[in-house]
Amino acid sequence: MAAHAAPVHVAVSTVIFALRPSPVDGRMTVWLPLVRRIRDPFVGMWALPGGPLEPDEDLAESAARTLAETTLLTPQYLEQLYAFGNTDRSPGERVVSIVYWALVRSDEADIAVESENVRWFEADSVPELAFDHSLIVEYALWRLRNKLEYSHIASAFLGDTFTLSELREVHEAVLQKPLDPANFRRQIEGSGQVVPTEQLRTGGRHRPARLYRYAATVETNGPLGRTEGAS
Amino acid sequence: MAAHAAPVHVAVSTVIFALRPSPVDGRMTVWLPLVRRIRDPFVGMWALPGGPLEPDEDLAESAARTLAETTLLTPQYLEQLYAFGNTDRSPGERVVSIVYWALVRSDEADIAVESENVRWFEADSVPELAFDHSLIVEYALWRLRNKLEYSHIASAFLGDTFTLSELREVHEAVLQKPLDPANFRRQIEGSGQVVPTEQLRTGGRHRPARLYRYAATVETNGPLGRTEGAS
Repeated sequence: MAAHAAPVHVAVSTVIFALRPSPVDGRMTVWLPLVRRIRDPFVGMWALPGGPLEPDEDLAESAARTLAETTLLTPQYLEQLYAFGNTDRSPGERVVSIVYWALVRSDEADIAVESENVRWFEADSVPELAFDHSLIVEYALWRLRNKLEYSHIASAFLGDTFTLSELREVHEAVLQKPLDPANFRRQIEGSGQVVPTEQLRTGGRHRPARLYRYAATVETNGPLGRTEGAS
Repeated sequence: MAAHAAPVHVAVSTVIFALRPSPVDGRMTVWLPLVRRIRDPFVGMWALPGGPLEPDEDLAESAARTLAETTLLTPQYLEQLYAFGNTDRSPGERVVSIVYWALVRSDEADIAVESENVRWFEADSVPELAFDHSLIVEYALWRLRNKLEYSHIASAFLGDTFTLSELREVHEAVLQKPLDPANFRRQIEGSGQVVPTEQLRTGGRHRPARLYRYAATVETNGPLGRTEGAS
């Protein structure tokens, strides 16, 4: 492995997705927190939370630390998304960025402070970002939408139990299109992915609704476990 | 991003899987090429093909170069698997390894030269490897077995068209268990994943067999395309 001193820097960044209401029509959409750059390159532009990997911290630790430092967010579980390492992605220096991502519930997202230099944006309409971070957000959104089809993504946004209406709203928010409630119910129930619990969601202006949970536990990362590659 | 000179090195390694007959009973199993280390740390031990990332090459380029240099293998498409960056994975230095992987057809694998320091091993019974490469191989195998369920993995091993027997053999080799031919045929045909072509496989000692292909094109990497994150 690398015994010579190659001038390649390693950074770690995070993409944190939460569902929040659109200011336009109140419908749920996908949002993420961004941090304004206070130094060159790209000073003044928005970027993903992150920073250089410290020599004594694991990759996921670095992601969690830089995320908490900038946004106060501490997601239960950060998953590795992808390593971006094109030679031209940072002017004047070679930086490989390991990107982590997490989906957080809206109530978790609400603790994140906004300030002049930290702000939540709708993922589909972020401004032009520093480095290749626009591409990273686009890729993360693509993965999120793909993942919806074969994984238990809703529980990350909703918690362990949820009504079928809440689940449909997650799918609508991620896919950005309305879904017919009766079709959605039939399709989800037919898939065997979710099972009804004994509990009902009560309160609010609607009649009590059955709570569901996913049929199996959320997938882990196999031999790597839920935390960064324990060896 | 990293403006300071952190003593973190970046290496790129590859896991190349091919199906080859087991020397014990001739059944197909999953194999991968390993390279013997000729310097410390871990001198004499087997490791994944790879090496330090050069400052002027993209991640996938580095993976392809080091793979070709050691094994002569040039897979059509290398996919990023995972970045391994635990602090203790390389004695005396901090190395983050970006690992790529590919599945290659047996005839592609056959061009790889074996030598004293390059050899193919059955993936389920590799010796203890240098660094955390044993964990990496275990993780790659886990991903391979998971991926079998929802992707067009067989075409990477078989080419664009294949008989249902060939497809079943891939599943048997990857999952390491025999599958009932009639059940497998019913399940695969019922899934709509593969569609029959007008062609037959003829020759050999079996009667002609219908060739199939996957119903849709192989999934890409979304906004990143089939090659490394073009920005």
